[in-house]
Amino acid sequence: MSHDVVPAGSPSYLNRKDDYLKRLRRIEGQARGLQRMVEDEQYCIDILTQVSAMTRALQSVSLGLLDEHLSHCVVGAAAAGGREAEEKVREASEAIARLVRS
Amino acid sequence: MSHDVVPAGSPSYLNRKDDYLKRLRRIEGQARGLQRMVEDEQYCIDILTQVSAMTRALQSVSLGLLDEHLSHCVVGAAAAGGREAEEKVREASEAIARLVRS
Amino acid sequence: MSHDVVPAGSPSYLNRKDDYLKRLRRIEGQARGLQRMVEDEQYCIDILTQVSAMTRALQSVSLGLLDEHLSHCVVGAAAAGGREAEEKVREASEAIARLVRS
Amino acid sequence: MSHDVVPAGSPSYLNRKDDYLKRLRRIEGQARGLQRMVEDEQYCIDILTQVSAMTRALQSVSLGLLDEHLSHCVVGAAAAGGREAEEKVREASEAIARLVRS
Repeated sequence: MSHDVVPAGSPSYLNRKDDYLKRLRRIEGQARGLQRMVEDEQYCIDILTQVSAMTRALQSVSLGLLDEHLSHCVVGAAAAGGREAEEKVREASEAIARLVRS
Repeated sequence: MSHDVVPAGSPSYLNRKDDYLKRLRRIEGQARGLQRMVEDEQYCIDILTQVSAMTRALQSVSLGLLDEHLSHCVVGAAAAGGREAEEKVREASEAIARLVRS
Repeated sequence: MSHDVVPAGSPSYLNRKDDYLKRLRRIEGQARGLQRMVEDEQYCIDILTQVSAMTRALQSVSLGLLDEHLSHCVVGAAAAGGREAEEKVREASEAIARLVRS
Repeated sequence: MSHDVVPAGSPSYLNRKDDYLKRLRRIEGQARGLQRMVEDEQYCIDILTQVSAMTRALQSVSLGLLDEHLSHCVVGAAAAGGREAEEKVREASEAIARLVRS
């Protein structure tokens, strides 16, 4: 595997931490931009377009985190054997359900 | 109608501007909270839970803005007559599609 | 308006009934295709791809119905005046929320 | 693990095949019910409510299949070692992205 096996439970996005921080700062900026648009009483539909863009950016963060979680925590736990993998899959499935339904 | 008919095109969320600003400030705070969680290398699944909460908060802003847009701009344009209403509906339908697909 | 104003409450998709029936028959066919895939024990991921295609087809039916509902019922009620439009918008907003959250 | 490790790639929902077939037959029935509603020219909003119910039923099938895929194929491949697990995770992540975006 090219993915390093990290101990199950430890954050699996360590190498890409800076990338996630950058994306989240951009999302924070989008939230501020939306406040300015409301403040300036811009057109509803334009605001909605920005909210959709921000939602997609957030979704993309989720999908990235989930992929790394599966690659590292779930695969790591399964490789280590024992019941840990089962618990990790259950957690991941619940997170996926929240994501799909949100 | 209890809703005031505002001229089509003018922002329809005027009365609730403060409420929207408050909700967007809270969403901005959630984006900062997520950065702290990544900074502190918290558990992926916990971060994902927070991202889902933030996505739901954004969705709720969208649904609110859309409802007011329909109540004011679309209904206002239709009451005024002419082709304006058709254009407003087309715009609203496109915004709904973006929302559903994001 | 090129859209005929139909009495509020009457089905607004009348002209496109055949189109909707055709799309729903295709969706029914997709549901049968999925049963065959499960029966034949095909690969999970391939089944999931088909479920996503079917979900998108359903979503597209929803967005079409909603657009016609706004164009006809909501605009019709608003043009007629009175409190009817308000009730129609409330109903439409609730349907949009169910759609976005499903 | 209580989950049997099945060879990676073999269908992981074997034990629950009958349950999935039953759910998909019910979804097929919902598609037929929607055709009757359109045929009978029922109210748009009522049709939309049924489409949302059907979408949720489909989503629940997806989430179930995905959970079993993770539990069996992904965990099985990881336990077996080698590069297979990586490929399984990539496939699963792509399926999750399609699901979240549909």
